[in-house]
Amino acid sequence: MQLKPLGDRVVIKVLSQEEKTKGGIVLPDTAKEKPQEGEVVAVGSGRVLENGQKLPLEVKVGERVIFSKYAGTEVKIEGEEYLILSERDILAVVNK
Amino acid sequence: MQLKPLGDRVVIKVLSQEEKTKGGIVLPDTAKEKPQEGEVVAVGSGRVLENGQKLPLEVKVGERVIFSKYAGTEVKIEGEEYLILSERDILAVVNK
Amino acid sequence: MQLKPLGDRVVIKVLSQEEKTKGGIVLPDTAKEKPQEGEVVAVGSGRVLENGQKLPLEVKVGERVIFSKYAGTEVKIEGEEYLILSERDILAVVNK
Amino acid sequence: MQLKPLGDRVVIKVLSQEEKTKGGIVLPDTAKEKPQEGEVVAVGSGRVLENGQKLPLEVKVGERVIFSKYAGTEVKIEGEEYLILSERDILAVVNK
Amino acid sequence: MQLKPLGDRVVIKVLSQEEKTKGGIVLPDTAKEKPQEGEVVAVGSGRVLENGQKLPLEVKVGERVIFSKYAGTEVKIEGEEYLILSERDILAVVNK
Amino acid sequence: MQLKPLGDRVVIKVLSQEEKTKGGIVLPDTAKEKPQEGEVVAVGSGRVLENGQKLPLEVKVGERVIFSKYAGTEVKIEGEEYLILSERDILAVVNK
Amino acid sequence: MQLKPLGDRVVIKVLSQEEKTKGGIVLPDTAKEKPQEGEVVAVGSGRVLENGQKLPLEVKVGERVIFSKYAGTEVKIEGEEYLILSERDILAVVNK
Repeated sequence: MQLKPLGDRVVIKVLSQEEKTKGGIVLPDTAKEKPQEGEVVAVGSGRVLENGQKLPLEVKVGERVIFSKYAGTEVKIEGEEYLILSERDILAVVNK
Repeated sequence: MQLKPLGDRVVIKVLSQEEKTKGGIVLPDTAKEKPQEGEVVAVGSGRVLENGQKLPLEVKVGERVIFSKYAGTEVKIEGEEYLILSERDILAVVNK
Repeated sequence: MQLKPLGDRVVIKVLSQEEKTKGGIVLPDTAKEKPQEGEVVAVGSGRVLENGQKLPLEVKVGERVIFSKYAGTEVKIEGEEYLILSERDILAVVNK
Repeated sequence: MQLKPLGDRVVIKVLSQEEKTKGGIVLPDTAKEKPQEGEVVAVGSGRVLENGQKLPLEVKVGERVIFSKYAGTEVKIEGEEYLILSERDILAVVNK
Repeated sequence: MQLKPLGDRVVIKVLSQEEKTKGGIVLPDTAKEKPQEGEVVAVGSGRVLENGQKLPLEVKVGERVIFSKYAGTEVKIEGEEYLILSERDILAVVNK
Repeated sequence: MQLKPLGDRVVIKVLSQEEKTKGGIVLPDTAKEKPQEGEVVAVGSGRVLENGQKLPLEVKVGERVIFSKYAGTEVKIEGEEYLILSERDILAVVNK
Repeated sequence: MQLKPLGDRVVIKVLSQEEKTKGGIVLPDTAKEKPQEGEVVAVGSGRVLENGQKLPLEVKVGERVIFSKYAGTEVKIEGEEYLILSERDILAVVNK
């Protein structure tokens, strides 16, 4: 991965429709707040609390996650679509 | 459960109308802020306070809860409807 | 009470007009922010401060309280109307 | 006083026009943010800081105060008009 | 002064146009955010920080100050116009 | 300087167009958020943190600074135009 | 660099289209929130936490970064276009 996200941000590789249906989780188009699925490819060094302590992220590289569709910033590297978003926009890890 | 929610989030299985009427609690359609009933199926590891302490969630897997209807994100797994929401959107636990 | 509210929430039984007039307190319809009267029937375990300390609620089960009319979520259990609201929406306890 | 306000709230007896003119303070109708005068009749137990410390209120029962006209909730007890408001909506104490 | 402001509030005697021009400071009518000049006639006991410490005000009775025109609440006492405002709406002290 | 700014505020002498072009920095009119250049002529005593510690300002009297055009309050003293603004509206110091 | 940014701000030299395509990262025009690429040329002394501790910035002079297009303030020095923005508007560092 060429990108090293800052703070509590993560880089996510957005999964194609085929990859998603394999997992058995369907994220309905009619959902109130459309969620998306992806794979974590890079994580920031963590969030700094007001007491100066650095809090490492909960998600790890290689994990599959569900996140809010309208979160984050799109980046394209060598034809692949990525998203940079804050960990707080990630809803859940998908156990494989 | 395939989903492991992050932070203070929980995964809730929304109860069907029949399941709800059994419980004796009626959530009126005319309510100012429409509440819903469901069962907790997965909980996050907790909320991190500004002093670095991790606060475990109050709700537990298997508990029935009432939550605000407009909270959370819908996810469908193998035909079942689930909601991922923050514990602060849960109003009360229903004692069985 | 079948409901156990979470955090700093309380469950309140809304008083009928007859019950209210007995108390001698009149909450005018023309008030800027319409207040209501009710009886506390269940209280949450308290609010967690940023230092991790749990702060128990000030109100107790059985107390009569005045609260802002537009606060909270309505729930109906066996024909009775209840409200789940945050303690910070309760204005005062009525001494009997 | 039948009402015991919660937290940092106070109960205020709104002064009639005659009572106000005696005090010599005129609160102009054309003021940008219309203030009102009243007498404190009950005070809450105080505001809880994030370190768990309870901070008692600055105002005391019997003091005359000036407060913002649009603050608080009206309550009528035995024909008298009262207001329940947060101490932070009180601007100043009037020295007699 | 009949008024004792609460917390971080101060009472200010608004200066008349003649008094202002003497000081040599011109506050232009065309300014983006119109400032005003006045004299501090009473100060509150201070602001309470979240650690419980009381922070005394920086301004003192008798000082001339510049403040934002749209801040505060007007009060008239014996024909004189006063303003009650928070110290954070005071921009600077004018050295005489 | 006749003005002593409060807290984290500073007084800035806005530079005329000739003075600005000498410095070699051009602040384009078409910029998204128009910046301006000026010289610090007075600084407040600092910002108070929530732990009671007073944090002195980073900028010093005599430094040239760039700040957001829409920040602050204009004041005119003896024909000179000044701005009173919070240090957080200053973007950078210009090294001479 | 003539500019010394304050606090958690950084100065960034915006990369021209040719410089960007060399890096292999394409920031699509159709992206929801348009990101941009640049090189850090100056960094502030850091952000002060509420406990008084100064937190140095994560980015360093010479690093290539991706940031949100609508963040920051444009400055032009000797024909070169720069941006002054807060470190929190920087999404990721690009590893060369």
